[in-house]
Amino acid sequence: MPLENPFYTAQMQGDYELVGLGRFELEEGGVIDDLQLAVATYGELDADRGNAILVPTWFSGTHATWWQVYLGAGRALDPEKYFIVVVNQIGNGLSTSPHTTDDPSIAMSRFPHVRIGDDVRAQEQLLREHFGIERLALVVGGSMGAQQTWEWAVRYPDKVLRAAPIAGTAQNTPHDTLFTQTLMDAITSDPGWNGGEYAAHTDVAAGLARHADIWAIMGLSTEFWRSGFWKGIPPVVEGLGWETFEEFQQNFTRLLFGMMDPNALLSMGWKWQRGDVARHTGGDLEAALGRITATVFVMPIDEDMFFPPRDCEAEQQLTPGAELRVLHSIAGHFGLFGFEPSYLDEVDQHLRELLATDVG
Amino acid sequence: MPLENPFYTAQMQGDYELVGLGRFELEEGGVIDDLQLAVATYGELDADRGNAILVPTWFSGTHATWWQVYLGAGRALDPEKYFIVVVNQIGNGLSTSPHTTDDPSIAMSRFPHVRIGDDVRAQEQLLREHFGIERLALVVGGSMGAQQTWEWAVRYPDKVLRAAPIAGTAQNTPHDTLFTQTLMDAITSDPGWNGGEYAAHTDVAAGLARHADIWAIMGLSTEFWRSGFWKGIPPVVEGLGWETFEEFQQNFTRLLFGMMDPNALLSMGWKWQRGDVARHTGGDLEAALGRITATVFVMPIDEDMFFPPRDCEAEQQLTPGAELRVLHSIAGHFGLFGFEPSYLDEVDQHLRELLATDVG
Repeated sequence: MPLENPFYTAQMQGDYELVGLGRFELEEGGVIDDLQLAVATYGELDADRGNAILVPTWFSGTHATWWQVYLGAGRALDPEKYFIVVVNQIGNGLSTSPHTTDDPSIAMSRFPHVRIGDDVRAQEQLLREHFGIERLALVVGGSMGAQQTWEWAVRYPDKVLRAAPIAGTAQNTPHDTLFTQTLMDAITSDPGWNGGEYAAHTDVAAGLARHADIWAIMGLSTEFWRSGFWKGIPPVVEGLGWETFEEFQQNFTRLLFGMMDPNALLSMGWKWQRGDVARHTGGDLEAALGRITATVFVMPIDEDMFFPPRDCEAEQQLTPGAELRVLHSIAGHFGLFGFEPSYLDEVDQHLRELLATDVG
Repeated sequence: MPLENPFYTAQMQGDYELVGLGRFELEEGGVIDDLQLAVATYGELDADRGNAILVPTWFSGTHATWWQVYLGAGRALDPEKYFIVVVNQIGNGLSTSPHTTDDPSIAMSRFPHVRIGDDVRAQEQLLREHFGIERLALVVGGSMGAQQTWEWAVRYPDKVLRAAPIAGTAQNTPHDTLFTQTLMDAITSDPGWNGGEYAAHTDVAAGLARHADIWAIMGLSTEFWRSGFWKGIPPVVEGLGWETFEEFQQNFTRLLFGMMDPNALLSMGWKWQRGDVARHTGGDLEAALGRITATVFVMPIDEDMFFPPRDCEAEQQLTPGAELRVLHSIAGHFGLFGFEPSYLDEVDQHLRELLATDVG
């Protein structure tokens, strides 16, 4: 029986539609009998279906940040010009997930391993069968959304005209694999997690708090903390603000991650650790990236502590014709949340330029 | 009754002497009835006592790294020229510590809070009473050793002629405070820690492993992991090497930190979080650093993920006449271990220049 969790509702995340894809076989051997993708669309599909943009979501994220922060009339991702499809990744709490499924064979601790390639195959099926879309004007995503963006460009070169991986890599690095493990261990070390069989996400509150604390030191930047940038961030919950950095940590990072489902985070963490386009080419990253025909802007964030620009640049240099466009945010990886208008302006400028490139 | 732990022995760490300072009142209100400092000296004190160098130790460290890596004939820290006194910090497992004390009133979970200022006062007493040293040609230390170095220069300006804080700050940053908390929580969340009343450090193996894993992502650098630099590091235990980064993580980071005492790490962690020379000046950091009369070289490591050069530079700029000397190590903060001859050459060059400055 699905667990109640108000975080994973349309009220909290914004409207979305659940689209069933039927039986879905996973790359690791598991099966989801009726895979449901939580999909939010913005704008209208052109008659020639040439204006579709796909946005896959990041770790712990949903479609919410996209409509709240990145989309809008006059923006690069303009629903008046484009048909923008944001697909929540499998296991994120909105698409089929450990705590939401009605199927006891995959509920909670029995949820099968999902890979980046599974998400991308499911998205391809969704776009083709449900929307009749065979080609994408752009795939853009941040962090694990960037992993999926890279996977799209390598797996379906004929379907992706442009790609913008933001703050994420095509092949997960050792440092990221170790980092993600500390996030997961913070959760699984909580006795309340109970091997994945908790009765409510709040049973794992201590583990979720430790998980949030590791995010605070890696997801944000040393300069974010030193500068006191957090003082200007509006409260998540009205009236629950902060005077000190400890209160910010409590009422922002811990509060946000504390709402989430532990097994959902673990499912995404396992997937993140194994993101690797070189699985298509026997481990040869250069050969995998060499398959890409899309026009690619690689967009790391300058203060990112675990997807640093040089890691992203190394992949950009292996990608035919790709350009490096470094974004600037004092918030580091969490710059993705769009705290700074200057950061969002940069994103818009790069995406506008990318969308204007002739890929004929 | 003290716990057995082979890590904290002369066999493992190199020779040292225990020097009793008698009853020692701590800044937080606790008392150690007979404080024992574990002291290692190298070289001979000149007749005029002008050639003394003090080295305080870092978090989890002992005097071992100093004689193994930093000291030597022809080096900047040359025992043939200088009388070098390495003092293990209180609570580090060699000086009076939770698991080694015979005094039940301060053993294990009852160990009192110790501050950076306590270490520095104890070291001052040791040098004056035991060695007859009233002035130091140099104080040099890394990380928490840098915290103690800064504290020396602010607290005893007349006694410190030169100071070289390496990879550490005078006032701990919010980011560092949060980082240290994740290290401590990794340990205390292990049921085997048992509120500090374990029977052996191995009871806390899971917590110590999580603690080591967080060090792996913050203590080293993204570039260390990406470049495979770890492949060239010699094994800690003969025959226990590594082919993969996961094996390195197991047989290097986890192995080293897994030998240590959990309460010792927690005592040092609490101290680290509260390092702040501005306690002398009512919270005014500029005023505190303005008291310094020593010639100071501030020496951050370029790839350090939690004492980044700019945090150290901000303090250097508030310190009269201080110079910024950035060191280079792909190993980040753990560059302190001296994996690279080039890093050690840089340290030696800067310290040689500093020691040659006329402070008359």
